[in-house]
Amino acid sequence: MPVDIQPYLDRKREAVDRYLEGHLPAPHSSPAVLHESIQYSLLAGGKRIRPILTMASAEAIGPPPAAVLPVACAFELIHTYSLIHDDLPAMDNDDFRRGKATNHKVYGDGMAILAGDGLHTMAFEWCSRADLVTDVDPRCQVRIIEELALGAGTAGMVGGQALDLQAEHQRVEWEALQQIHAHKTGRLIRAAVRAGALLSGATMTQYEHLTGYAEDIGLAFQITDDILNVTGTRAALGKDAQTDGERGKQTYPSVYGLDGARRLARECVDRAVTRLDGFDEKADPLRGIAHYIVNRTH
Amino acid sequence: MPVDIQPYLDRKREAVDRYLEGHLPAPHSSPAVLHESIQYSLLAGGKRIRPILTMASAEAIGPPPAAVLPVACAFELIHTYSLIHDDLPAMDNDDFRRGKATNHKVYGDGMAILAGDGLHTMAFEWCSRADLVTDVDPRCQVRIIEELALGAGTAGMVGGQALDLQAEHQRVEWEALQQIHAHKTGRLIRAAVRAGALLSGATMTQYEHLTGYAEDIGLAFQITDDILNVTGTRAALGKDAQTDGERGKQTYPSVYGLDGARRLARECVDRAVTRLDGFDEKADPLRGIAHYIVNRTH
Repeated sequence: MPVDIQPYLDRKREAVDRYLEGHLPAPHSSPAVLHESIQYSLLAGGKRIRPILTMASAEAIGPPPAAVLPVACAFELIHTYSLIHDDLPAMDNDDFRRGKATNHKVYGDGMAILAGDGLHTMAFEWCSRADLVTDVDPRCQVRIIEELALGAGTAGMVGGQALDLQAEHQRVEWEALQQIHAHKTGRLIRAAVRAGALLSGATMTQYEHLTGYAEDIGLAFQITDDILNVTGTRAALGKDAQTDGERGKQTYPSVYGLDGARRLARECVDRAVTRLDGFDEKADPLRGIAHYIVNRTH
Repeated sequence: MPVDIQPYLDRKREAVDRYLEGHLPAPHSSPAVLHESIQYSLLAGGKRIRPILTMASAEAIGPPPAAVLPVACAFELIHTYSLIHDDLPAMDNDDFRRGKATNHKVYGDGMAILAGDGLHTMAFEWCSRADLVTDVDPRCQVRIIEELALGAGTAGMVGGQALDLQAEHQRVEWEALQQIHAHKTGRLIRAAVRAGALLSGATMTQYEHLTGYAEDIGLAFQITDDILNVTGTRAALGKDAQTDGERGKQTYPSVYGLDGARRLARECVDRAVTRLDGFDEKADPLRGIAHYIVNRTH
């Protein structure tokens, strides 16, 4: 690991948490239960990897505009909405998330659906609100919204979730499974990195290298998630472990073995870091994040 | 009614249907079940009132840009996503919609949640995609996206749905109920009208008058929906009738009587039409739509 990335991650995570706390609708304002349910899931202490990637990507190119925070946080809003919907009984039916009972276990399925829907819209609201995004060229702002939509939608995250849902009822080829993960996790991560690039006015070449970086770490992220599902404990993960095996899901460790999966993840990280060869030390956080992604324990 | 609005509504509805058919992901493209489920609900023959309002509002000011169609259709995408989620067992648990089995009855709850999520994102995608919105000032485009988000989100439609969900478990004051409806139906209708105004470069005064018009017809729309729930048949409505009474919901007819509710709706329409006094004959479709909203039978 070229730099100790932990202090950077802590600093950025705090900035994201502060921004979220400062800009969410107050939990006691009407509709109170909806706002409370949104806060419950959003302020449950996630790693904030997606917004941090947006910020680190913007910084890799130059000083980012102040509006990097609402845009970065929009990716966390989308991520959290997807977790709430994914945990529903009609989907993965999970009881624990980030060490707490899942949203629908506390607020009921109906309110959980609406909390997800509210967070989903809020992501686009934060990217478009005149009082939050003050120093970004509107042309660039529209491109960022387009990235967010394409990363989150049927060609991205939601498409991956739909493929995943279908896969539960049938035997799926390994290559199809990789497609599921590329969509379900990879596209939103890529959009988060690209949004940062757009915010700082990346050149076409920079944008393409950062896109490659994002695709590589997205894959590394998925492989590591699969590994942690095998090796992790519920205490460390904050959710049930060993669930993939129980569900008979094919995963990187089940196909390549634990060592093989770890090697694959490291190869992805090395490739990701190589994509940044043309960037100076301002890209060090991105390099550090790539290593962090495979070394994390939760 | 000053003009026969039906030919206008038919023409516009066909334009919306053609645009939707031409721009949705093909039903057999991957993920096929998701795309099929989206088509199932979106192409089920709705009245397309929201997109038509966007178009009529834009035309009331001047010749609208070509991008009026993707923006207008975005409101139908949001509306359809909200119907799919609203019909789920965890919410209203409805079996019929637009004369067909509801989405989750055909595709299952999980896929219905994802179809709604996919349509939700798609609305923002269509408003931001560079190849669809080619002739709108990006500054104006961002304002339209902001309107769409505020109308659809926790301060608008989703907020109204959350209040509605809470109201099912307790006795609610009549004024609180009116707030629910103003949010659940009114805010998205208002956003649809405002988006049209923004597309045609409305002055601040025009924008405010159109906002008042939208709020008045939004209320008329809700009152008429309540009336139709009492007087309509499942054949005409395409969904179960008389459900409000069964659920013990307070409605305009239950509070004001059927005649009182009809009078209230007509007053709203008259007020809406008065808001358009400063507009010339280009606003005739908006005037006709106001009358149509209370005279419709489904």
